[in-house]
Amino acid sequence: MKELQKGVCAPQGFRAAGIWCGIRKNQSKADLAMIVSDVPCTAAGVYTKNKVKGAPLLVTQAHLADGHAQAVICNSGNANTCAPNGMEIAEETCALAAEALGLRPEDLIVASTGVIGKEMDIEPFRRGIPQLAAALSPDGSEAAARAIMTTDTKVKEVAVEFTAGGKTCRLGGIAKGSGMIHPNMATMLCFLTTDAAVSPAMLQKALSEDVPDSFNQVSVDRDTSTNDTVTILANGLAGNPEIAAPGPDYDAFAAALAYVTRRMSFLIASDGEGASHTIVCQVTGAPDKETARAVSRSVISSNLFKAAIFGRDANWGRILCAIGYTEAEFDVSRVDVTLRSQAGSVLVCRQAAHSPYSEEEASKILSEEVVTVLVEMHQGSGEATAWGCDLTYDYVKINGDYRT
Amino acid sequence: MKELQKGVCAPQGFRAAGIWCGIRKNQSKADLAMIVSDVPCTAAGVYTKNKVKGAPLLVTQAHLADGHAQAVICNSGNANTCAPNGMEIAEETCALAAEALGLRPEDLIVASTGVIGKEMDIEPFRRGIPQLAAALSPDGSEAAARAIMTTDTKVKEVAVEFTAGGKTCRLGGIAKGSGMIHPNMATMLCFLTTDAAVSPAMLQKALSEDVPDSFNQVSVDRDTSTNDTVTILANGLAGNPEIAAPGPDYDAFAAALAYVTRRMSFLIASDGEGASHTIVCQVTGAPDKETARAVSRSVISSNLFKAAIFGRDANWGRILCAIGYTEAEFDVSRVDVTLRSQAGSVLVCRQAAHSPYSEEEASKILSEEVVTVLVEMHQGSGEATAWGCDLTYDYVKINGDYRT
Repeated sequence: MKELQKGVCAPQGFRAAGIWCGIRKNQSKADLAMIVSDVPCTAAGVYTKNKVKGAPLLVTQAHLADGHAQAVICNSGNANTCAPNGMEIAEETCALAAEALGLRPEDLIVASTGVIGKEMDIEPFRRGIPQLAAALSPDGSEAAARAIMTTDTKVKEVAVEFTAGGKTCRLGGIAKGSGMIHPNMATMLCFLTTDAAVSPAMLQKALSEDVPDSFNQVSVDRDTSTNDTVTILANGLAGNPEIAAPGPDYDAFAAALAYVTRRMSFLIASDGEGASHTIVCQVTGAPDKETARAVSRSVISSNLFKAAIFGRDANWGRILCAIGYTEAEFDVSRVDVTLRSQAGSVLVCRQAAHSPYSEEEASKILSEEVVTVLVEMHQGSGEATAWGCDLTYDYVKINGDYRT
Repeated sequence: MKELQKGVCAPQGFRAAGIWCGIRKNQSKADLAMIVSDVPCTAAGVYTKNKVKGAPLLVTQAHLADGHAQAVICNSGNANTCAPNGMEIAEETCALAAEALGLRPEDLIVASTGVIGKEMDIEPFRRGIPQLAAALSPDGSEAAARAIMTTDTKVKEVAVEFTAGGKTCRLGGIAKGSGMIHPNMATMLCFLTTDAAVSPAMLQKALSEDVPDSFNQVSVDRDTSTNDTVTILANGLAGNPEIAAPGPDYDAFAAALAYVTRRMSFLIASDGEGASHTIVCQVTGAPDKETARAVSRSVISSNLFKAAIFGRDANWGRILCAIGYTEAEFDVSRVDVTLRSQAGSVLVCRQAAHSPYSEEEASKILSEEVVTVLVEMHQGSGEATAWGCDLTYDYVKINGDYRT
C-alpha cells in the first residue's frame, strides 16, 4: 500500500483548517477544526457504546441517518457531555458552520473532545467559525489534526493510495486519542476522507466491519469514552464507478481502509497518555477470531503487565494471567508466548509453563520502543492484533491533575 | 457485631504460626504459615475464575470435595503456578504438613502466593514445616497473617463474636491482597475459621453466597489472579447445635461471615499496591442487585477516576463515564453522584449533569484517606458496595520491578 502525505486532504477535493477560537484558555493550543469536501459526500459513522453519550455524537448520528454529509466541525477542550445545554450547543455549532460554508446544518458532522461535564459557551464558535472557514486549505490537514488533540503529544495523520474501477483513489484520516481509550466502542475521534465513490450502504458496511479489528483493539486505560466517533466522507472525485456492492473494488477499498485504521490504531496506542513503550499483541492459532481478539485485548489491557513493560521486566506470568482471565472458552495449557522487538525475539513460555531464556536478552528486547507479544494458541486458525502501551508514572501524573 | 482480637485464633481450638523457611531470600520476611484446628472441621472454599490456576488451588479443591479439612499450609514468595513440578510440590507440601500434624494429607488446605512461573523447590518446606508445627500457638494468627503477605504493607486480621443456638460463637480470618486483584473470582487469599458447628453444605452455601458481595466487589488493578482462594474451617467447639439448614442460626452465622468478609474487603482495598486513598462506592436505587454490583465495580475500577482521586480532583465526569460503560441495562440520565468523607459531603452530579458545588470543598473531602462515592440511580431497590483504591506513582513503581 502506497502511503501519502496530507492526511484528510490527500483525497481530491478536501480542504481542512484548525485554529484557536477560545474554548481553551491557552492560545498556543488550537481548539477548533474543520474538514470540508468541495462536493456532497456519502458518509458513515461508528460511535461509542458508552451509555453516557456526548451531545455532538447524538447530533452527528441524526445527521448521518440519510448516509450523506459534506463537512466536519470538531472542537477540543470541552467534550460537551453531561452539560445541560449540550444539544443546543451542538446544533448551533452545525448551524454556524453550515452558514459559513453555504451548506445545510444536516450536512455537518459535529464532534467534541475534552473535559466531561463542563458547560459549553457558543461564543467562541460564533467568533471562530467564520475565521476557520476562511482558513480552509488543501494543506490544512495537519492544522486540523493539531486542533483536535487533547493530551496527545503527536499529530496523527495517515493516508494511502489504492485502485478501484481502474481509477487511482485516495483515503486519508486524522485522529486524536491518548486517554480514556478502551475497546467496546467505535473509538476516540477519527475523521476519514476518500475521493472514491462508495454508496452509503457499502461505506457503512466497510466501516462497521473494519472497527472490530482496528480501533476496538486499542486500549490505553480501559476507560471507554463518552464521545468516541469514527466517521468517513466519500466524495467520488476519483471518478471510479460507485462501489455499490461487494466485489473486487469493495475489497480494494476495504483494504485501504484497513491499512489506514490499523496504522492509526498503532499511532493512538503509541501516544497513549504517559506511554514510553508501544505494546502490540498478536494472537494466532485461536479457536476463532473473536477469541483471538479478546485474548489480545486482555494482554494489552493488563495494568500489571503494562507496568512490567515500563520496568522492562519480562514478567510473562502476568501475560499468562491476563490470557487466563479472558472471558472466552479455550485450552490455556497449549499456549506459547514469545517477546519480540527490533532487538530480537525470545520464547518465554511454552505450553503455559516456563521456557528457559536469558533474562538479559529479554530485557534488551524490552528496551525497544515497540514491543510485540506473540501468543500462539495451537488450537485453531483465529488471529487478531491489539495495540496498547505501558503504564507509567506519567500516566498517573497526567490524570492526577487533568483539570488543573 | 462485637469485634475480637486474634484473627483466625479467635475461635476456640485454633492455633496458627508463621516462620521464614527460605522460599524467600530475605530472612526478615516470613514465608510459610500454618493454621490448625484441634479437632476435625467441616470446610468450604471458593476459587479464582482465571483459567490459569495455581497447582495448590487444584489440590485444595480436591481435598475439600468431601467437605472436610483440619489445617491450612500456605507459603508466600512463589505462586507455584505455571511451574512444571507444581502438582508434585503442592501434594508433597500437604504430605509434609500432615506428617508434622498427625493428619492425613487430604485434611490439608494448601495455598501459595507470589511470582507466577518460577520453579518451586521442596527443600524449604521440608526444613520449615516441622519448625512451623512446633511454633503453633493460640496467639499465632498475626504471625501467620504476616507470613502470607507479599506486597501487602498491613497485616489483615478480623474476628467477631455472634450467637447461634444459644451459644457464643466466633468467626475470624486472615487475608493477603495488594496486587493482581479484581472481581470475577473468589479472590486473593483469605483463610477463615469458626468454632460454630456448620454442616459442609451450609458452610459452602454461606461462603458462595457471601463472596459476590464481598471479595468479588474489590478491585485494585483489574487483574484477576491465578491463585485466589477463600476457605473456611468450622470446628464446632462452640457447642451449638450444627447449623444444617437455613433458619435464624444460619442467618446469624451468615451475618458474622458478612461482617468479617466486608471488613476484610475494605482492608485489602486500603492496602492496594501504592494506594494513598481507599475508595468505597455505594450504589443505591439500581434496577436490581446485579446492576448495582456492576456499576459500583465499574466506578472503583476506572484508572482515570483512580488517578483523579490520587490528585484530589473531583472529576465526576469520569465517574459518569465509568457508570456509562458498565455492561448492564439502565437509564443513566437519572443518576445522582455524591462525594463523601469525614470532611463532609457534596452532590457533584444530579441527573447525569453538572450540579453546582465548591471545588474547594470537594478537594477537602478528597483529602481524607477514605473517600465514598454515593451513586443514587433512582430506578429500583438494588444496592451494592465495592471497594478500591487510587492509582498512584507507587503502583507503577511496585509493579515496574516486582521481580528484581
